[in-house]
Amino acid sequence: MKTEFEWTRRNLIGIENLSPEELTFILDTAVSFKRTFDRKNKKLPSLRGKVIANLFLEPSTRTRVAFEVAANRLSADVLTVSGSSSSIVKGETLRDTAQNIEALKADMIVIRHSSAGSPHYLSQVVDIPIINAGDGAHEHPTQALLDCFTLREKIGDLRGRKVAILGDILFSRVARSNIWALRKLGAHVTVVGPSTLVPETFMSMGAEVSHDLRSALTDADAVMLLRIQHERQSQMHFPSLGEYTSMFGLNQERSSWLKPDAIIMHPGPINRGVEVDSDLADSDRSVILDQVTNGIAVRMAVLYLCASANEWQKRKESL
Amino acid sequence: MKTEFEWTRRNLIGIENLSPEELTFILDTAVSFKRTFDRKNKKLPSLRGKVIANLFLEPSTRTRVAFEVAANRLSADVLTVSGSSSSIVKGETLRDTAQNIEALKADMIVIRHSSAGSPHYLSQVVDIPIINAGDGAHEHPTQALLDCFTLREKIGDLRGRKVAILGDILFSRVARSNIWALRKLGAHVTVVGPSTLVPETFMSMGAEVSHDLRSALTDADAVMLLRIQHERQSQMHFPSLGEYTSMFGLNQERSSWLKPDAIIMHPGPINRGVEVDSDLADSDRSVILDQVTNGIAVRMAVLYLCASANEWQKRKESL
Amino acid sequence: MKTEFEWTRRNLIGIENLSPEELTFILDTAVSFKRTFDRKNKKLPSLRGKVIANLFLEPSTRTRVAFEVAANRLSADVLTVSGSSSSIVKGETLRDTAQNIEALKADMIVIRHSSAGSPHYLSQVVDIPIINAGDGAHEHPTQALLDCFTLREKIGDLRGRKVAILGDILFSRVARSNIWALRKLGAHVTVVGPSTLVPETFMSMGAEVSHDLRSALTDADAVMLLRIQHERQSQMHFPSLGEYTSMFGLNQERSSWLKPDAIIMHPGPINRGVEVDSDLADSDRSVILDQVTNGIAVRMAVLYLCASANEWQKRKESL
Repeated sequence: MKTEFEWTRRNLIGIENLSPEELTFILDTAVSFKRTFDRKNKKLPSLRGKVIANLFLEPSTRTRVAFEVAANRLSADVLTVSGSSSSIVKGETLRDTAQNIEALKADMIVIRHSSAGSPHYLSQVVDIPIINAGDGAHEHPTQALLDCFTLREKIGDLRGRKVAILGDILFSRVARSNIWALRKLGAHVTVVGPSTLVPETFMSMGAEVSHDLRSALTDADAVMLLRIQHERQSQMHFPSLGEYTSMFGLNQERSSWLKPDAIIMHPGPINRGVEVDSDLADSDRSVILDQVTNGIAVRMAVLYLCASANEWQKRKESL
Repeated sequence: MKTEFEWTRRNLIGIENLSPEELTFILDTAVSFKRTFDRKNKKLPSLRGKVIANLFLEPSTRTRVAFEVAANRLSADVLTVSGSSSSIVKGETLRDTAQNIEALKADMIVIRHSSAGSPHYLSQVVDIPIINAGDGAHEHPTQALLDCFTLREKIGDLRGRKVAILGDILFSRVARSNIWALRKLGAHVTVVGPSTLVPETFMSMGAEVSHDLRSALTDADAVMLLRIQHERQSQMHFPSLGEYTSMFGLNQERSSWLKPDAIIMHPGPINRGVEVDSDLADSDRSVILDQVTNGIAVRMAVLYLCASANEWQKRKESL
Repeated sequence: MKTEFEWTRRNLIGIENLSPEELTFILDTAVSFKRTFDRKNKKLPSLRGKVIANLFLEPSTRTRVAFEVAANRLSADVLTVSGSSSSIVKGETLRDTAQNIEALKADMIVIRHSSAGSPHYLSQVVDIPIINAGDGAHEHPTQALLDCFTLREKIGDLRGRKVAILGDILFSRVARSNIWALRKLGAHVTVVGPSTLVPETFMSMGAEVSHDLRSALTDADAVMLLRIQHERQSQMHFPSLGEYTSMFGLNQERSSWLKPDAIIMHPGPINRGVEVDSDLADSDRSVILDQVTNGIAVRMAVLYLCASANEWQKRKESL
């Protein structure tokens, strides 16, 4: 399939509007990139001379650094514009900031923003590719891609496999992107957690909704833990950390409910002792650090494919 | 002329002491650099192995990033030392900081500082080229260069052309550098705005001073808007934003006073609805984003010329 | 000796556990690197494709930038993770942060941390080399290396030479690393300053302890000044800045007690007029800026040697 497929998207806004073939093609491309990781000289010349702008208007070191590593490995230069170095931003609309970055001849914008929809909006107002690195409670597509990459690597073809997503689902862009991706790849998804954090509405996305941890874990091939946001705790519907951990924290006993070879995933950074026992996070079941490594491979694939589609489109337009 | 001219300056401290030939030579050099912008691999090897230190002791993302892009395109490495990462700076004199950067074998310092005269001072105490990226109310030479580049690109030879500079002129280094540059290139300059922001003293620089917006715009080939600094508003002589906009903000009606093909410029970031109507900022008359792109070309020219002059001088001294 | 010696360490945690041969080998390697400083293209390809993570969890521009310059000159890419951009860090253990950096396929971690022992700890929990860039009151090995490099360059073989370390010794990692290094290289070391800052316990490290500035300076070949930390002043045992300067500040009169060709050193940033007179800091005796330049050479040597030892070890393990 890989050889016949032609990638045509310049932007990666979300998983929702990707076809299963597109998803698979990104993951297959990432596999090729991961094969280069053990080479002595790890840099590929693919994006030499290109400038990737990392526009991070919400604090995030992990994702920013992961995109930086991916860009460097493709020999691109990275321009960091973050919320704290905000004079490009202060008193300026998001559109003006993005158009300024485009006018600086950047070739692509990777954007993290607290407002859902901002990457889509930017894709309407600038002519360079936009990669969504997390927008409000909407999507975090590269996180879902690295999660699916890791699942395929560890448990193989996802058709018919069962994945439980556990924790604070309500406003989670990670959960949303993963539900879209897993469903498109043929997996069953159960979202599980306290009823205040896991509303019935997720059924409309094709996920099963459960508040019974034991039954959700029992037949799962993988459990994805979500980070519990400390700052959410002041909100009325949110349980205290202690309550959450006592009811839904993954510990040795509860992990014994899983299938023997089921894996434990987490997007990081983990709160040891809150959403997961410290020992479990370091156990053989945990693939948390594999996820980090695979994040480089999928981001290389995304940067490479969107840049190539853009070049191709510009060439066609200039004919 | 270009082939016969020999550039000999190691530092760019201000426009005031440049000859018209020097100004023209920088702009011509920038034209050559801009021609490389559409190449697939945009990087030139000119400054490979050189280290440009960006010493930004006053917050500024736009100018810092623009110099970073220009340096990267010449294959130089950039070392960022900013005011917030201030331990190189804290308890240390500016001279010590600059001499430390020189001792780290940086090849050039680009400095932004709140004190007028600090770039000149540094040029006395270190042996590497100093580029002024804005010093207090004194000068911002690369901004004037990119403005003149854009004017030449859009309206051709500046001799006899009329440029109105509109806004908070009083402490504006952008206005000062532009008045020097435009006068040297043969243009007429009118500074216009409320009398508290546009004092008669600018006449000594060769500019006309006006408080009548209509007459200033009527025969202008270009109007340069300056950013209204919100923080200036607490000062007694400063009008409120509302007052300013109602009297001097550029709107559709007032822009109709301009010649049909006159252009609108702004150094950014723009306050939409304050110094300029949002629609006007996005209209065909606006060259605001061209200015940003041209800023890369002129900064490449400045970095390249000053580095080359420095190499040349060092070679001569070592003979 | 150099040709027969084989460097085998992957980590540089401190000077204490280095042999005199290892110390000498690093310094000799740094000499080779310094010879490349005057080349037109200063970059060596040695670490091309490698990623050096600068994990700076205590503010420090000087050391961070110096490692960045050293890494760039070896053609490595640098990933900066600093305390302020702390989301990789917040709610995450130091071990998790380091293991995430390793999972991002960084090839080496340079760590600055306020806790003594953290570099050693990291070397136990990750498989990539760890370079200590200063850990609490424990060690700052690359500072001692650059100091010894500068001493060898200026006064030659250190055997039998006398070095006075003057100032706030009590919690100084710079003093500790230098005492280890100088003793191993055969020099006599006197630590001198007010009794509250220079306790007798340093005798156990092989240093002489003195509270008599004149006698300590009289036969010294070099005096190393330490920075007086303003923030220490609120502590009971600490003299006021005025008291310190009047009793132990190095001024013209006191420097006349030194041998005619004795040199003055300081790790920077200097407090002019506190630990040293401004004129003295700029005098021919002062080698303060040479120390900064030599810091690049020794850090290039350290990065290069530890990276090579690591490659070698991985190759052996994979056989």
